[in-house]
Amino acid sequence: MANYAFGIDVGGTTVKLGLFTAEGELLDKWEIPTRTQDHGKNVLPDIAEAVRGKAKEKGFSFEDVKGVGIAVPGPVLDDGSCTVCVNLGWGHVEVSKDLSAMLDGVRVEVANDAGAAGFGEMWKGGGRGCSNVVMVTLGTGVGGGVVVNGQNVSGAHGSAAEIGHMQVSWDETDVCNCGKKGCLEQYTSANGIVRVARRALKTNRIPTCLKDDENLSAKLIFDAAKEGDEFAMGQVEEFGKVLGRALAAIATVVDPEVFVIGGGVSRAGHIVTDVVRKYYIPAAFQGCRDTGFKLAELGNDAGIYGAVKLVL
Amino acid sequence: MANYAFGIDVGGTTVKLGLFTAEGELLDKWEIPTRTQDHGKNVLPDIAEAVRGKAKEKGFSFEDVKGVGIAVPGPVLDDGSCTVCVNLGWGHVEVSKDLSAMLDGVRVEVANDAGAAGFGEMWKGGGRGCSNVVMVTLGTGVGGGVVVNGQNVSGAHGSAAEIGHMQVSWDETDVCNCGKKGCLEQYTSANGIVRVARRALKTNRIPTCLKDDENLSAKLIFDAAKEGDEFAMGQVEEFGKVLGRALAAIATVVDPEVFVIGGGVSRAGHIVTDVVRKYYIPAAFQGCRDTGFKLAELGNDAGIYGAVKLVL
Repeated sequence: MANYAFGIDVGGTTVKLGLFTAEGELLDKWEIPTRTQDHGKNVLPDIAEAVRGKAKEKGFSFEDVKGVGIAVPGPVLDDGSCTVCVNLGWGHVEVSKDLSAMLDGVRVEVANDAGAAGFGEMWKGGGRGCSNVVMVTLGTGVGGGVVVNGQNVSGAHGSAAEIGHMQVSWDETDVCNCGKKGCLEQYTSANGIVRVARRALKTNRIPTCLKDDENLSAKLIFDAAKEGDEFAMGQVEEFGKVLGRALAAIATVVDPEVFVIGGGVSRAGHIVTDVVRKYYIPAAFQGCRDTGFKLAELGNDAGIYGAVKLVL
Repeated sequence: MANYAFGIDVGGTTVKLGLFTAEGELLDKWEIPTRTQDHGKNVLPDIAEAVRGKAKEKGFSFEDVKGVGIAVPGPVLDDGSCTVCVNLGWGHVEVSKDLSAMLDGVRVEVANDAGAAGFGEMWKGGGRGCSNVVMVTLGTGVGGGVVVNGQNVSGAHGSAAEIGHMQVSWDETDVCNCGKKGCLEQYTSANGIVRVARRALKTNRIPTCLKDDENLSAKLIFDAAKEGDEFAMGQVEEFGKVLGRALAAIATVVDPEVFVIGGGVSRAGHIVTDVVRKYYIPAAFQGCRDTGFKLAELGNDAGIYGAVKLVL
């Protein structure tokens, strides 16, 4: 009987690790630094060592481990390999095969990090009880997770749920990190919200507490909007319009039961789900207008929950 | 041993029926009229009678039938019921339960018709060998089918793959059948292509063989473009731009291996896939740029193939 499982979320700075029971209860969580130098060749060995160390500390053997689920910041193929993870310095890495070999052949399942977060939120967070969920992570960029019939969708090239790079404008002049112009994340990520606001501030004539300086942040903009700052409120409406319409487009493809919105921007709270839903409804196909909008609940733990669910 | 199965595609005018072997070989196909009067109350009894008649004709009993797959023109829920089928006069109908009861309890599985067509094309047509397929049906309207990991996606409200109602323009003045303005099908269905061309012809100064009269059709426009008619070529480019960009958006959600394009408009041939792909590539996320574009191969039989696959 395997009583334990590990859920691991690999970020560009730290690796989050969770030890779970086979029933999915979180027993322990901790972090190790992500050593990205030398094309990230130490990342998997460091993880293997951390997992071994924890098993030893708790006094159980690998026969007692049901599996290890791992979330990585890049596209993942069906064979558990990752085609590229820019933030880890990785090219093509056989994550599942290599990590399993380092851990006496224990079962290792791999998912994209945003996908894993969506999976985690479906399981234990904002999407609890739903089997069709779209997760939207509004952080530095915009990530996504698509869960259909309870299964995480990775796509033919591991690029499913790359909704941050859905093109939503055709007259944008700034270039997105992906090389295109007019991607969703250029308007609705934390950086995108600031970018749009800076641009508007240049010609703004509405009195506002916001200044185009280095302190300007998505948080400041949402805070000002909550205080009734008219310019900031206009910026929040713009954000809601772009994201609401994009989610309406997504609903015509997979028709989720609920959109779960997470990432740093979502910490502004219900103002986010309210404004997105306001613009979603008129743009959505009739049959999908009552789709739910929930805030993510697991915060930084969504990835380890989603990762461990892959092996439970 | 069950040796037979039926695949049925219910349209607003006719019901197409196919008798298949349990291995999926089409043995016989025929049609019956769809009697939509009295809220379509005769549709399922007529189908049951047709199925019984065929079994009798071929001399096998229902014990020899593996199941009946049926495709209907409306949203389908997981329990095999249909929430509404405007073209059949149906409100909520328990398709699976009712038809099964009329056929001595034989297994009945139900899918949306566009979804079934996509499923059929994945199995035996343009998407053969792929397990992640998006089917686009360019007919009177625009329908879709989304297949993820070999499974047809119906969504939380049966409205997945309603890609014809993805909003792609925010300054449209004409109203779509769905009540919104600016839906994909207003530009890329057979009717939509004519609508856009009529509008352009009003102010057109380019010499063209096309006239804004009752004969104008999508076929005429594509034929003229193939002959080098400059105005018609411009219309085909417009069509490709709108559809190519919409498919790029869809790829950020489910990342299919191939887009299969069917319906009446697709009979124009490779000019359709070529022009759509031309605009798809620059709009698509990097990882999805080599996604395939295929023409549908099964024509009007896609629905019965997809339907029977549900029970095989």
